[in-house]
Amino acid sequence: MRYSYLTDLECPKDGRRYDAGVPQKLCACGSPLLARYDLAALRAEVARDDIGAGSPTLWRYHALLPVGSSDAVVSFGEGMTPIFGLPRHGRKIGVPGLVVKDEGTLPTGSFKARGAAVGVSRAREIGIRRIAMPTNGNAGAAWSTYAARAGMASLIVMPRAAPEIARKECAVTGARLYLVDGLIGDAGAIVGRAVANSDWFPVSTLKEPYRLEGKKTMGFEIAEQLGWRVPDVIVYPTGGGVGLIGIYKGLRELQELGWIGAKLPKLVAVQAEGCAPIVRAFEAGAEHAEPWQDAETVAFGINVASAIGDFLILEAIRATGGCAVAVSDTEILQQLADVGRRDGAFFCPEGAATLAAVAKLRSGGWLDGSEEVLVLNTGTGLKYPDTVSANPPVLPIGGSIPMLD
Amino acid sequence: MRYSYLTDLECPKDGRRYDAGVPQKLCACGSPLLARYDLAALRAEVARDDIGAGSPTLWRYHALLPVGSSDAVVSFGEGMTPIFGLPRHGRKIGVPGLVVKDEGTLPTGSFKARGAAVGVSRAREIGIRRIAMPTNGNAGAAWSTYAARAGMASLIVMPRAAPEIARKECAVTGARLYLVDGLIGDAGAIVGRAVANSDWFPVSTLKEPYRLEGKKTMGFEIAEQLGWRVPDVIVYPTGGGVGLIGIYKGLRELQELGWIGAKLPKLVAVQAEGCAPIVRAFEAGAEHAEPWQDAETVAFGINVASAIGDFLILEAIRATGGCAVAVSDTEILQQLADVGRRDGAFFCPEGAATLAAVAKLRSGGWLDGSEEVLVLNTGTGLKYPDTVSANPPVLPIGGSIPMLD
Repeated sequence: MRYSYLTDLECPKDGRRYDAGVPQKLCACGSPLLARYDLAALRAEVARDDIGAGSPTLWRYHALLPVGSSDAVVSFGEGMTPIFGLPRHGRKIGVPGLVVKDEGTLPTGSFKARGAAVGVSRAREIGIRRIAMPTNGNAGAAWSTYAARAGMASLIVMPRAAPEIARKECAVTGARLYLVDGLIGDAGAIVGRAVANSDWFPVSTLKEPYRLEGKKTMGFEIAEQLGWRVPDVIVYPTGGGVGLIGIYKGLRELQELGWIGAKLPKLVAVQAEGCAPIVRAFEAGAEHAEPWQDAETVAFGINVASAIGDFLILEAIRATGGCAVAVSDTEILQQLADVGRRDGAFFCPEGAATLAAVAKLRSGGWLDGSEEVLVLNTGTGLKYPDTVSANPPVLPIGGSIPMLD
Repeated sequence: MRYSYLTDLECPKDGRRYDAGVPQKLCACGSPLLARYDLAALRAEVARDDIGAGSPTLWRYHALLPVGSSDAVVSFGEGMTPIFGLPRHGRKIGVPGLVVKDEGTLPTGSFKARGAAVGVSRAREIGIRRIAMPTNGNAGAAWSTYAARAGMASLIVMPRAAPEIARKECAVTGARLYLVDGLIGDAGAIVGRAVANSDWFPVSTLKEPYRLEGKKTMGFEIAEQLGWRVPDVIVYPTGGGVGLIGIYKGLRELQELGWIGAKLPKLVAVQAEGCAPIVRAFEAGAEHAEPWQDAETVAFGINVASAIGDFLILEAIRATGGCAVAVSDTEILQQLADVGRRDGAFFCPEGAATLAAVAKLRSGGWLDGSEEVLVLNTGTGLKYPDTVSANPPVLPIGGSIPMLD
């Protein structure tokens, strides 16, 4: 058994192949590149049950990841996040089979740790020593954190409006950090100019092929944790869309290995009404999404006006019979409050957007209420204190609480 | 194999036994009560290797926990937090064998989730429907969260100076929340008066016996994750001390089962110079600790002037050849910054206090640098944004980053 069955990189648009042993960015045609594996050999040499003997981290899937040896792994023990039911909230919104995979318990408090763990490990392995990226906050925090662990330098640019905790995470882990008075696209333009003709390697969303490989482990874990089967529906908050594309890629790899059956979950992309380019493209039957003007939402992580992987997102949704749905900030904050009170889970606003989508799809009839629906809570609510108001009474020393009922 | 081998409760001071099937508080003598198990039967019926087949949560140790059936478990999938090295920081402070168990990846972002998961599960199982507690923040957040999941009501009182995120966690999970213009002891007095003659059950530190059982799983996990052996030294930030007492209790149970050998780690209790009652008692050779006057530290979770389990903490330290050490707020914040930059780990201030203690014990010669030293980072740095300053430059749209070196 090899540690990794990675073979090369493939362009999903024109089929061109690229050497995975050296740093690669986009295909010459402008498309993201996808990592490919020798799945036939893997199928012959690795049994599904071997996975269970691995560590309770995403590295248990190392054969399906691009990192060539355990020595190259940069890790805080990330992965195998819990899946649990939301029984009270699920019943209230008419979907009793509602479950969540809670990515908030990953290092750095968000699913971005997956992409950073695999992306940084592979970057270092192939000789990259300095990484640069635009971010809406969580990705920058994660890549700065893993870069520090790897002994690599990082340059992070994020919108001034990004959650403040992300600045602190970058600062404490030693990133070179800049804010921009604009959106993530403006940050991306600044990074692009800064790294041109330098040895700083840009690791923007899908502009290098390995972040996606980390994200696909969400798909692996969902299948394994459910006993090597998939739920009926997976609902994902969609900004750059790497998580959704990754889950789809991961599940297709498991199918090719024969580790899961023919059924795929319907994949649902959730966006905010204030920034819904994928939803608009889905409804129009388009293959690509036009950039969204004046993007704005409380779910800052999905405030992405233009996604380079738009066609991959739309393909994953359509191929699985899923859909794309937009929800309002009001709905997001209401769901965040409701699920906390009912089931004790403190969602991030992006995660709460998936709950709003489930409620909307149920009331609109797209869901009939019998389905097992898995939502991704992509981060911990702890990173978003402003989504909750708390104004408790203040008592003096020796004070009393009004009579309890 | 039974789900739980719990037999009854025992007073560690006078040996009296109590029925574990009904709610119990302190022994008649005022001491905390300890849960006892039929370890002889467990040893005969359960093999150490059976544990590994369980879920990657603290519930894999259910035979050694007080909850009677899997149906009674209230869970977010907590436990089996990662242990990883801090190689760069460890070398810098002269202890290359430095490792951390990172409790920040638990639900609610702190080790308090362990006590809440087991405490709430058991409370509900024996008929309690309303819980009340004073807290320095994290425990209240955890118990409010698990109570919401259990469908139980919670009343939480915390100092006004407690980290603000804890208020939000209590609010979003529906607690009845009050602040007090004082310390945790003042909050405790308010709770005590409020619940007297009511059906609200007080779950203050060690005033009910089951929170400790959750905390002891840190000891179980450390032993199992290291391959059923213990490190040379375990360093713990000590406020109420339940974690330290729990690790000691857990390791002693493993010894009695024959699952680990005769060696125990030296247990080190770390306090802040601004609140060090246990350190003072340890140095004086006392069995109990006098309350600390005017307690104050940036490590708010260990700002506990008086601990009801003081004699149990001191016993655990002395029985293992450990010690108690106080560190300054300046040292704490310096270590927090250093370990973030060097190894990418964002510690909470209580966790950083353990690093300050390791540095101090090494420079003072108590550690010779050859030891495997495990520190507990009891919570995620994400809950303490004020420990890090970040003032990045702000660029306009279209702006440029000064030339990168």
